[in-house]
Amino acid sequence: MTGPAAWLDEVAFDAAGLVPAIAQDAVSGRLLMVAWMNRQALALTRETGFAHYWSRSRARLWKKGEESGHLQRVHEIRLDCDEDVILLAIAQDGGIACHTGRESCFFRRLEAGPGGDRWVEVDPVLKPAAEIYGSRS
Amino acid sequence: MTGPAAWLDEVAFDAAGLVPAIAQDAVSGRLLMVAWMNRQALALTRETGFAHYWSRSRARLWKKGEESGHLQRVHEIRLDCDEDVILLAIAQDGGIACHTGRESCFFRRLEAGPGGDRWVEVDPVLKPAAEIYGSRS
Repeated sequence: MTGPAAWLDEVAFDAAGLVPAIAQDAVSGRLLMVAWMNRQALALTRETGFAHYWSRSRARLWKKGEESGHLQRVHEIRLDCDEDVILLAIAQDGGIACHTGRESCFFRRLEAGPGGDRWVEVDPVLKPAAEIYGSRS
Repeated sequence: MTGPAAWLDEVAFDAAGLVPAIAQDAVSGRLLMVAWMNRQALALTRETGFAHYWSRSRARLWKKGEESGHLQRVHEIRLDCDEDVILLAIAQDGGIACHTGRESCFFRRLEAGPGGDRWVEVDPVLKPAAEIYGSRS
């Protein structure tokens, strides 16, 4: 295949036109978040160097950080063996990827307790969500 | 909620009863693979300490490494803020997670070329797939 969009044609978007996209800190390797991309989001991510996703709940394109300022600068884009998952190596502006104000969305760890296994929040909130999203006038 | 399965009830399986599960090397932080889990796969992963997934193509439960010997020993299980993605920190037996014989399924990187952007295989095959899967008699 040739042409500027040939690489996009190789991505196996699902029936809804989406693939999962994983954002990983390019330096620490920390897994920060997982969101969804459609073809346009992936193309814009490549063109601009900033991560763009498709919001399934809001049904619209979304530039990560457009409200919070927590932009994701993309160092590398990878594709898996089944061509249906995207991996981004990024630098996270503000050091906060999660809308809860934590570095990573994966802040709950499964731990054994007296009443059985449970999810425990093990990472701190670096900035309250009200401060991240509440300052818009 | 109480009872041994309360933590499973907190996971937001999709309409097909599945969530994406990411396997990350517990030491290096390398992203190794993404597969799907149903409730049973997640429960078995916890109970046995070995990663289990749901194969959508074969429509059956699948213990990672059952054919290849490349088992995944689970050190930690995390859940994301939307409760719909699982992250496993694992030790990968054989150092090969991908069915192509590479360490990671994410062996293709998007690179600029004279004919436009293209996916380039940047990681080596550590063991040919025929050697991994061909020795069954």
